[in-house]
Amino acid sequence: MPCHTHAAHDPAWCIQQTDFAGSSLKAYEGLFAQGAPGLHIRGSLEEPIADAPQGLRYWRTPGNVTAEVFREARSKFGTYLPGIYGSHPILNNELVNLPWFLWLVPEIDGSALDADSDAVAEHERTLDLRDNTLVRALTWRTPGGARVSLLYERFVSMDAGARGVRLCVQRLTIDTDRATDVTVRAGIDADVTTNGYDHFKRVDLAAEGERVRCAVQTDLGDRVEIESILLAPHAAEAHAEGRRGWSEARAQVTPGTPLVIEKRTTVTTSRDAPDGGGTGELLEAFAGAGFDDLHRAHADAWRAKWAHADVRIQGDDRAQLAVRTSIAHLLRTLPHASDRVAIDAKGYAGEAYWGRFFWDTEMYLLPFYLYTDPAGARALADFRIHSLEGAQRNAHKLGLPGAKYAWESDQLGDECCPNWQYADHEVHITSDVVYGLAHVARATGDDSYLDTHAACVLFDAARYWTARVSVRPGDDHPSILGVMGPDEYTPIADNNAYTNRLASFALEAAADAAARTGQCRDEARTWRELGRTLPIHRRADGLVLQSDAFDRLPLADFDGRWKDRTRPFASQAPQEYLYRTQCLKQADVLMLMWLFDSEFSIEDQRTAWRYYEPRTTHDSSLSAAIHSMMACRLGLNEEAWRFWEEACAIDLDGGAAEGIHIAACGAVWQMVVFGFAGMRSAMEDEVLTLDPRLPAGWTTLEFPLVWRGTSVQVRVTKDGVELRHSGAASLSARVAGELREIPAGGVGRWATGGTTAP
Amino acid sequence: MPCHTHAAHDPAWCIQQTDFAGSSLKAYEGLFAQGAPGLHIRGSLEEPIADAPQGLRYWRTPGNVTAEVFREARSKFGTYLPGIYGSHPILNNELVNLPWFLWLVPEIDGSALDADSDAVAEHERTLDLRDNTLVRALTWRTPGGARVSLLYERFVSMDAGARGVRLCVQRLTIDTDRATDVTVRAGIDADVTTNGYDHFKRVDLAAEGERVRCAVQTDLGDRVEIESILLAPHAAEAHAEGRRGWSEARAQVTPGTPLVIEKRTTVTTSRDAPDGGGTGELLEAFAGAGFDDLHRAHADAWRAKWAHADVRIQGDDRAQLAVRTSIAHLLRTLPHASDRVAIDAKGYAGEAYWGRFFWDTEMYLLPFYLYTDPAGARALADFRIHSLEGAQRNAHKLGLPGAKYAWESDQLGDECCPNWQYADHEVHITSDVVYGLAHVARATGDDSYLDTHAACVLFDAARYWTARVSVRPGDDHPSILGVMGPDEYTPIADNNAYTNRLASFALEAAADAAARTGQCRDEARTWRELGRTLPIHRRADGLVLQSDAFDRLPLADFDGRWKDRTRPFASQAPQEYLYRTQCLKQADVLMLMWLFDSEFSIEDQRTAWRYYEPRTTHDSSLSAAIHSMMACRLGLNEEAWRFWEEACAIDLDGGAAEGIHIAACGAVWQMVVFGFAGMRSAMEDEVLTLDPRLPAGWTTLEFPLVWRGTSVQVRVTKDGVELRHSGAASLSARVAGELREIPAGGVGRWATGGTTAP
Repeated sequence: MPCHTHAAHDPAWCIQQTDFAGSSLKAYEGLFAQGAPGLHIRGSLEEPIADAPQGLRYWRTPGNVTAEVFREARSKFGTYLPGIYGSHPILNNELVNLPWFLWLVPEIDGSALDADSDAVAEHERTLDLRDNTLVRALTWRTPGGARVSLLYERFVSMDAGARGVRLCVQRLTIDTDRATDVTVRAGIDADVTTNGYDHFKRVDLAAEGERVRCAVQTDLGDRVEIESILLAPHAAEAHAEGRRGWSEARAQVTPGTPLVIEKRTTVTTSRDAPDGGGTGELLEAFAGAGFDDLHRAHADAWRAKWAHADVRIQGDDRAQLAVRTSIAHLLRTLPHASDRVAIDAKGYAGEAYWGRFFWDTEMYLLPFYLYTDPAGARALADFRIHSLEGAQRNAHKLGLPGAKYAWESDQLGDECCPNWQYADHEVHITSDVVYGLAHVARATGDDSYLDTHAACVLFDAARYWTARVSVRPGDDHPSILGVMGPDEYTPIADNNAYTNRLASFALEAAADAAARTGQCRDEARTWRELGRTLPIHRRADGLVLQSDAFDRLPLADFDGRWKDRTRPFASQAPQEYLYRTQCLKQADVLMLMWLFDSEFSIEDQRTAWRYYEPRTTHDSSLSAAIHSMMACRLGLNEEAWRFWEEACAIDLDGGAAEGIHIAACGAVWQMVVFGFAGMRSAMEDEVLTLDPRLPAGWTTLEFPLVWRGTSVQVRVTKDGVELRHSGAASLSARVAGELREIPAGGVGRWATGGTTAP
Repeated sequence: MPCHTHAAHDPAWCIQQTDFAGSSLKAYEGLFAQGAPGLHIRGSLEEPIADAPQGLRYWRTPGNVTAEVFREARSKFGTYLPGIYGSHPILNNELVNLPWFLWLVPEIDGSALDADSDAVAEHERTLDLRDNTLVRALTWRTPGGARVSLLYERFVSMDAGARGVRLCVQRLTIDTDRATDVTVRAGIDADVTTNGYDHFKRVDLAAEGERVRCAVQTDLGDRVEIESILLAPHAAEAHAEGRRGWSEARAQVTPGTPLVIEKRTTVTTSRDAPDGGGTGELLEAFAGAGFDDLHRAHADAWRAKWAHADVRIQGDDRAQLAVRTSIAHLLRTLPHASDRVAIDAKGYAGEAYWGRFFWDTEMYLLPFYLYTDPAGARALADFRIHSLEGAQRNAHKLGLPGAKYAWESDQLGDECCPNWQYADHEVHITSDVVYGLAHVARATGDDSYLDTHAACVLFDAARYWTARVSVRPGDDHPSILGVMGPDEYTPIADNNAYTNRLASFALEAAADAAARTGQCRDEARTWRELGRTLPIHRRADGLVLQSDAFDRLPLADFDGRWKDRTRPFASQAPQEYLYRTQCLKQADVLMLMWLFDSEFSIEDQRTAWRYYEPRTTHDSSLSAAIHSMMACRLGLNEEAWRFWEEACAIDLDGGAAEGIHIAACGAVWQMVVFGFAGMRSAMEDEVLTLDPRLPAGWTTLEFPLVWRGTSVQVRVTKDGVELRHSGAASLSARVAGELREIPAGGVGRWATGGTTAP
């Protein structure tokens, strides 16, 4: 069989699915999402499932309109193109789920393949993370008694994607134990909805011979064209029915001579470069290449990506697979700079959070890219510069000058969050954006980024903050009143420490840029003064207060109200209770201390941990990772490991049904590099600094880094640290407190106490 | 002409409309709402208007789903039956707009009457408040050149309504200057929606001869049947088309012999008593009576209502008409006790606030009924007892024991408010309910009401409060945390003074009832202790604080942000700004002091006025009235008059398009009786107490009262007060501080300083 993608499974690289029952299929659809810049697909099966209709229109009947309702219980098709948003009557804009083109189904003896049937056995799917190729194998006892082996392979070409071409390639190999007539259908199904809403103003379907072409016009006016070609031994005939079109090819399979069918799909949009060619031309361009040729180029592109990103953990297969799964999704989702988008909360793998961009971008995702692919990272950071006008509109709507970044941003930067307590009050996002831009400058050692491209963002953020602060009667300092910090269980509080510190950061960054460039001199004086005087309030005993009078709230009754700890506290306590008790959704003061380590003594940080951690529900998927890293810093090894395990399990253990927790993927990488390897970010240190604290089961940890333009290979063992770099100049590095100079292109070695066992 | 209802307009009793252009028609539709217990109709014209379709389905596309959008710009038909609610996909339940049955249109020379046509002149409508009869007169130059006079009269029979029968009677008199053929159409139109939503699961239309019958089944399963009969000189023929049915009668009108057409409509529901008879039988029952007979009985019923409610003001026609307009709507809307509903926020005259019940019931409406019709008042107060189970469900949903009354209650007491900041946090409503029940007991002098029927409400309210309070770390007293007081521009505050005091009231009332009845002894100890210890916080200088640290908020920038004072501040400042500045939507601490006068010194009250009034936007229609009354109490005559004028103008000057501000109607009565006549409520005093402060222009103010079972006629002039009562025992009364005993059936007279001119 021509099946070089179907090598033996390497458990350090492959995720395997053998369970297709209940809701697990949907979770694997998220986990098995494949893609390349410009095109992402959920990991659905190749055949429609009888009881899982995809054209449901239900958005109008949620119990609470501000929350998503997911009606597709068993399976959800998903085809997402970054930047293609649709207009929604009550939710502003959302990422559109485009027509499903994976449809490739054999029919034998009048019966189509049905994964649910008892006739199907030995059914398994494997996602090989190395080359992001999904392989599905099964045995089918057909109604006529034949024993048929099916092997599906598919990938979204990273090679094509890197060149701006959206290409998905599928191959189906059919073997049999007796001569059998087979009909194969391959098509496109536009009868799909997004969160139960139909965004297609128009659907044009054309099917002819082996080709099916489907063009949809979205309600925001984009035109997306999808074209599939079925490559089969015999001529195909085409059909169209409503919003579906397919080609049908017939063949006889005889034992020992497997039937090999290919399907290729290209996608174009009206936003593409005008000379990019149509879908048909693109398919023609690939006509000379076989599946194996296309796959080879694709796998090479992935290999190149892994070369500068792979994290190798020896001694812990689970950890190894978890970190690679995270990295694979991070590599998949980084958009083309030209698409002017960021990475949505579900990593283009589902419809929860409507395809919107959060503070995840700067705080959870950006570091991975900045330290592995700094040029690529610019695509993310620049999105905020491109969407500045949206942020200006958001500020203007609140009667404020400057720019207010959206809590839930669409592709243009406009606020889409339907819940006012976040949209209006969770204002730290604007500073997080500035922090991200500054992180680009520091990590690349290039301040000019802030002084040129990003300066307009810095200045408008500072103008926003200047208008947003207040001086309360009787106070001699400014305050930021009525905000929600990262902890979303404390609404509308005053002087949230995280928000204040980040606002100070943003104001200072703007003042610095103004000083360097000579712009906005008068304003800059105000910005610097405000940045200097915004307070971080402490209790008499020194505890940093999350917000004014936070310590005056009563404790939440976890014992009485949180009976089932496997589910979030918020599932067992109403919002109004969360809002009037001391309970945190996620790290808040600890997040602040994580970012601004040098400003808080280790005792400050310990005090904060002791106070806040027991009050934290970790209901947010973003909480565990920060706690794991803080625990590493504080020497709390057991806690560091416990939070690491929690964070790793989020998608891997069934949580990906509505998409990938892509911020958690970024956090998994951070937990390894910033947490267990103890690296300090460029925001904290100008010198590459590590202070490893390897988990007990890990014998070796290796990863590549780019530190201010120099590529570095890091190797951490129980006994020491080895840094190998290829730079043309020498590199300073500090490991476990010991500063050394590594000569150009050389290796530095440190002996350390090694791991501290949990 | 047989037109005894069309007497000369008495400007003290009649509201006249001569403007039918733009949006004024819609405002008059609200202002001219007619009804009797069980049936209310908006004051629409008798003909459909060309550019005002009534079957619009638009609920799905509001910009903000939590706010109503009113798309019917020019005219909105409205037919409302208290208790008939429909299910809504996102708004829980709402009062259903039922089929429109006022349709009665002449057609001459192939052209139907069109109020917008230039051919119509001398067009006016008059609502006579005495008998709630609407008269419409116009002259029509028909296409054929005839000059036709039309006179419409209509009423919803209060006589029938009092007996549980819903009957609407219409008469059309057509006169002409030359012989003219006329076709009259009379029908029912079920192509109507409620706030853009269609609640009819099924519509059955039957038209035969002069009769049209329309039965609808709502989405909550109620069946409502409407039947109209057209009484015309010649036989009619019937038509049905979609959701519309009508009868058509033809006749010739000759000069001097007006054509008189009648239309009668009855309505029944599946909730009516089973032996109530069908719509057809009801129509038969009235067959022997003429229009004039029916109108006489109706007018008598209204006369009886006015006898115990009319407020007579001499010297100020505008004030006279304003107070009578308010009282007429209050008399119209009081429901039958058997309907187990209260009065919705729009007085069954529109669809804003979805037909729901607010704290208006107890605080703004109940006093009028308690002091004019105490038996009728029970219908309102008892609604809370009937809907206790809904309140228990609301508490249970928040994990709390007892009962939490809904901020926006439907007919069963369930919370329908889609905005969590009110539904979850504006919790004072539960205490307001208890205050209302206690007001019934005090005003009627009958504590047994609290010990029997209402006891379960008191106990469950106390149980709710006991679980809802917290003790903050370091405090030696309980607090109510995270609430919104009456001022809806300060969300989620702690120890709101109004909320705390009302909660104390509710806890004490429960403890008292427990003590009297011997029930709940152990709980009652806790209730009393909590009631005693809930704090009212003050600033160092004695100012009663609206909530903890309210004085620490910065002032709202009214000068900078509130450019157009004719529109609410909230239309010019975003919610997030309201939420973090010192600005009030309406009276809060002043409302508290209004209710609990004896607990605050006059200096306390003056201090509070000076502090809070300048910070109050009066964006709520409920604010002006409380301020007018407080100003009376504080001797601020100019302010009392200014707020009175504002409050009177709300509906009278064009604000009734989406319904009547029925709470403001109750407040108008309170401003006269509690404000200018200075009466103290039975909650404040056991003795009837007045301290009049007549506005400069008023020469005489007269009104009837029921004080603890005794009917009293009050007459206030510039020179003194006269109280005349018909009680069998003597009556104590205090006027301007002077206590006297008025003998049984006698008159008491006090000379006073009279008015203080504004």
